[in-house]
Amino acid sequence: MSFTEIVYEVAGRIATITLNRPDRHNAWSPAIEAEVREAFARAAEDDAVRAIILTGAGRSFCVGADVTGIAGRKPDRPRFAGVTPPPGGAPPVTDLARRYSYILNIGKPVIAAINGAVAGVGLAVALYCDLRFMVAGARLACAFPRRGLIAEHGIAWMLPRLVGAMNAADLLLSGRTITAEEAERMGLVRVLPAGEFAAGVRAYVTDMVENCSPRSLRVIRRQLALAPLQSLSDAIELAEAEQAATIGTEDRREGAAAFLEKRKPNFTGR
Amino acid sequence: MSFTEIVYEVAGRIATITLNRPDRHNAWSPAIEAEVREAFARAAEDDAVRAIILTGAGRSFCVGADVTGIAGRKPDRPRFAGVTPPPGGAPPVTDLARRYSYILNIGKPVIAAINGAVAGVGLAVALYCDLRFMVAGARLACAFPRRGLIAEHGIAWMLPRLVGAMNAADLLLSGRTITAEEAERMGLVRVLPAGEFAAGVRAYVTDMVENCSPRSLRVIRRQLALAPLQSLSDAIELAEAEQAATIGTEDRREGAAAFLEKRKPNFTGR
Amino acid sequence: MSFTEIVYEVAGRIATITLNRPDRHNAWSPAIEAEVREAFARAAEDDAVRAIILTGAGRSFCVGADVTGIAGRKPDRPRFAGVTPPPGGAPPVTDLARRYSYILNIGKPVIAAINGAVAGVGLAVALYCDLRFMVAGARLACAFPRRGLIAEHGIAWMLPRLVGAMNAADLLLSGRTITAEEAERMGLVRVLPAGEFAAGVRAYVTDMVENCSPRSLRVIRRQLALAPLQSLSDAIELAEAEQAATIGTEDRREGAAAFLEKRKPNFTGR
Repeated sequence: MSFTEIVYEVAGRIATITLNRPDRHNAWSPAIEAEVREAFARAAEDDAVRAIILTGAGRSFCVGADVTGIAGRKPDRPRFAGVTPPPGGAPPVTDLARRYSYILNIGKPVIAAINGAVAGVGLAVALYCDLRFMVAGARLACAFPRRGLIAEHGIAWMLPRLVGAMNAADLLLSGRTITAEEAERMGLVRVLPAGEFAAGVRAYVTDMVENCSPRSLRVIRRQLALAPLQSLSDAIELAEAEQAATIGTEDRREGAAAFLEKRKPNFTGR
Repeated sequence: MSFTEIVYEVAGRIATITLNRPDRHNAWSPAIEAEVREAFARAAEDDAVRAIILTGAGRSFCVGADVTGIAGRKPDRPRFAGVTPPPGGAPPVTDLARRYSYILNIGKPVIAAINGAVAGVGLAVALYCDLRFMVAGARLACAFPRRGLIAEHGIAWMLPRLVGAMNAADLLLSGRTITAEEAERMGLVRVLPAGEFAAGVRAYVTDMVENCSPRSLRVIRRQLALAPLQSLSDAIELAEAEQAATIGTEDRREGAAAFLEKRKPNFTGR
Repeated sequence: MSFTEIVYEVAGRIATITLNRPDRHNAWSPAIEAEVREAFARAAEDDAVRAIILTGAGRSFCVGADVTGIAGRKPDRPRFAGVTPPPGGAPPVTDLARRYSYILNIGKPVIAAINGAVAGVGLAVALYCDLRFMVAGARLACAFPRRGLIAEHGIAWMLPRLVGAMNAADLLLSGRTITAEEAERMGLVRVLPAGEFAAGVRAYVTDMVENCSPRSLRVIRRQLALAPLQSLSDAIELAEAEQAATIGTEDRREGAAAFLEKRKPNFTGR
């Protein structure tokens, strides 16, 4: 598959997926959806990639779906992309294999670099990422009720877990537009100034890929994805099983050695 | 039913329910409880109403229950008021049909305008609203442990979802009184200055009723009420079903048309 | 059991458990774990104790486990300490009887006084406390991925409920070190200046033990521990049952009387 709606690049252990319809403010189309899914699968399977940045070309991140496109289109059945299998080889749970929730099942950190306006499905996709950096002054909206729409793609479930029940109700029931700064006060994004945006995001992710064990990141990301679906007891049992499984791994030995020797670790992911 | 403990008014598509025992700081009584429930049912059934404001007369919002009243009274069995049936005609789930949680089942936004002191059951009721505006400088308390009481009316479940586990423990285990400003930092309320309070709340709600589809608001409010009780997968399935159901509705067509024509929408709720 | 790794003191109705290996920054060992568990059980059973402070000696709170210790050790099977039985005499649910989650099952408030650096298992233990005060300028980390480890001891479940999903992902996937001030902005701790730290924590807890009913605190703490494991309906039913059970108790009568007489209550816990 070659990409026409996105750009996919790998550099310094980081894959960057750039939505690339800047003339349409990166409006979400069936083609862009398929290409993003394929790019995530490729990044998940590539051992040279340790983290993934999702961003947009031009002045917007993604302002939502094509109005004409979405009005006449039936929702796709969820398809499961070939992302890294979970620890233990268990099949991915249904919750992590839906139209966009598959992002939660990728075994590598996914960082949204929201370089400009974000709305609708663009915001929904960004919510499934681990972190959202957003450029100062940019605007964000869940305008669904202003368009006669509903809270799409699981956003009614994800948003309260990120910003609390009141902020979620405010955004989804008013459909109002807020600034990146207000979104930051809600706990939805981290704001970076325009002049330092791309470099700031890259510095954060570079620190992560250079100093964190890929094996640890894969396990922890899965723990975080499963936690809201588990009892506390199940979460503790999973942690105990995973803690036992780290014993004797290369990354565990390297992590302990680097710490004791006060040097940078050299993780292999095994 | 005519009201004696509250005032019920409808203007500009907004119903306002005003607790009206100002000499008792709007202390919660069996009569006020019954009238508020009836007023919510009336607002839910009235097609001229698109949103509901709950507020208090005088200097307080509601400082809790009559001490004498509550000490000798047995808790009522939950009764279900005749609020708008959920989309699809399914019966309301038990979680949304309890003594105060029925507020979550109303198909229209409910905004608490906390015009002064709030405590006890007054706070519990306010937590079931979508948003809480609070006048600057007013005081808020969950004084239950200072009165030998427990965390009443589901507040131990609602509060952590609004302000996180630590703030909830702080408020419920210390019983201390905080200002509106501290409540805002916790994410529990939005503060407005006294001079702009009523007008500020009304401006927020007016924007909502003039620009948002009543059909969208009904569906989204239900999605938000069900989200904490669902798996992510169930929430996504509900969103997909509701998204499919919007196709061809009047409000969806009007929302798309108004957006493309850059004009104010004229929603019917169908 | 006499203590060698901790100090246990009771004064003014408050038990203080002090991790006491200051030369090792109070690194967590099997011995310290067992003594802390025993001290919590003792405080839970002592009627003279109404709240518990957990703190550290020296310049750190607890910087995590002995690296050598944890690397070669198998996780313990969860053991249940003799804490106060829950109201109604029901057996503790599994979720509240795990290696550290037993802290949630103690019938008295537990306040962490984080007097210095906190990391790893030290942080995990602190998350099971109701409140975390932290001294200004101190540092906090979940460095697991930097050591080749995973999110241990239920921290992947607890942290998102305290600080939201994004802050939890940030801390657990980057493993970066943050200051007490950043932790406060996330809602994880409350910061107090070094010069007022011990006195400030003590003032908060003293107000609690002098003005709050021990019976109320026991019930409310259990409601808070169970809330994330319950449906809203179950939480409301529990609240209604507990509210009915307060009628006629000594503490309920004293709470009402003290309020009406505008005097300090004299609670017995019955």
